[in-house]
Amino acid sequence: MMKKCVVLFSGGLDSTTCLAIAKNEGYEAYAMTFDYGQRHSVEVRKARAIAKKIGVAEHKVMKVDLRQIGGSALTDDIEVPKDRAIESGVPVTYVPFRNGILLSFAVAWAEVIGANEIFAGMNAVDYSGYPDCRGEFIGAFVLAANMGTKSGGFKVVLPLLRLSKKEIVLLAAREGAPIGMTHSCYSPVEGMACGHCDSCQLRLKGFREAGMKDPVEYYD
Amino acid sequence: MMKKCVVLFSGGLDSTTCLAIAKNEGYEAYAMTFDYGQRHSVEVRKARAIAKKIGVAEHKVMKVDLRQIGGSALTDDIEVPKDRAIESGVPVTYVPFRNGILLSFAVAWAEVIGANEIFAGMNAVDYSGYPDCRGEFIGAFVLAANMGTKSGGFKVVLPLLRLSKKEIVLLAAREGAPIGMTHSCYSPVEGMACGHCDSCQLRLKGFREAGMKDPVEYYD
Repeated sequence: MMKKCVVLFSGGLDSTTCLAIAKNEGYEAYAMTFDYGQRHSVEVRKARAIAKKIGVAEHKVMKVDLRQIGGSALTDDIEVPKDRAIESGVPVTYVPFRNGILLSFAVAWAEVIGANEIFAGMNAVDYSGYPDCRGEFIGAFVLAANMGTKSGGFKVVLPLLRLSKKEIVLLAAREGAPIGMTHSCYSPVEGMACGHCDSCQLRLKGFREAGMKDPVEYYD
Repeated sequence: MMKKCVVLFSGGLDSTTCLAIAKNEGYEAYAMTFDYGQRHSVEVRKARAIAKKIGVAEHKVMKVDLRQIGGSALTDDIEVPKDRAIESGVPVTYVPFRNGILLSFAVAWAEVIGANEIFAGMNAVDYSGYPDCRGEFIGAFVLAANMGTKSGGFKVVLPLLRLSKKEIVLLAAREGAPIGMTHSCYSPVEGMACGHCDSCQLRLKGFREAGMKDPVEYYD
């Protein structure tokens, strides 16, 4: 029997790379996408296509509306910043404890299907301002999850934790991730990446530094 | 300014007692109820009435459908057991990592509103078979949450953790909780408590031992 894993999978470059890695490592992958009322719900449609392309045992799209909690530019009516220097500190796009919520669901699903590993694309380099992207947090969370579940023994695998965006781009290419299908933009225009939000800027910089052309289409 | 707290609040006897305690301790209480697709959704209606009666700063009913995850008699089509000896081990009514999920949302909301305390009615005596009701789990979870949030400094207050149901009944009465409005049943019949599921049996035993009559109406 193949070993199973849950992959936290948004359809962005990072989580698509994680999914490709899990598949290449021989896992039967259970992809979990959150339709959490984010303004960029185009992600969910693209995630479905990528999951199909890579091949997963199941793709679960969980409806969990984080707008009910509030407190972020990604879920509220706060404007997503454009064309500015990437900030230090906690960004306005931080959704309070989002990764805590998402990992809790991943643990619950892993327990139901009998998976031990949870792959996730958290990154502590470019997202150093997001407290729930830090390795220390994830480590502490897993300890808690192993005490709070019937089976225990979960591991969270974070292949991208210490990589720069350039290194992630190179890794994605090496693992055969369908880069052209991925979507990273925080505020898409007519379904296309805007090219100006923090996430687009970071992605474009990564491709530039990797000496590759980003195959996705930008609005501007 | 009054100190704020989030109360995980289902409308059952335990969480209603917690809410009464939080109010009596002088907190401005933010009650959080989950409409998570449980079969006993009558809970949600009763919770609204109790929150209004006790008086809360806000009552947030979060729609989070745990049926999407599966694995429990409370959310799936597994039959809830009736009239049997209360089991040892992990019960079929265990929802995988439910308290991990609920506490994650509570932490997120606490961060948004600026509350430090989260009151929750977990009980490690009668629910010893539920791994996510153990104090060790909650302690580890809080450590993780404090690393994974901007503000940190959260505390989870568990006034009922080590109390028997008899002691909870006596405490509820002493704190002036509206016991007659609470609802504990896993499988209500025509909106009334069944009197036969684990939860009803436990509650009725608690009232018997406390020498009190349970003011709620039972179907049978």
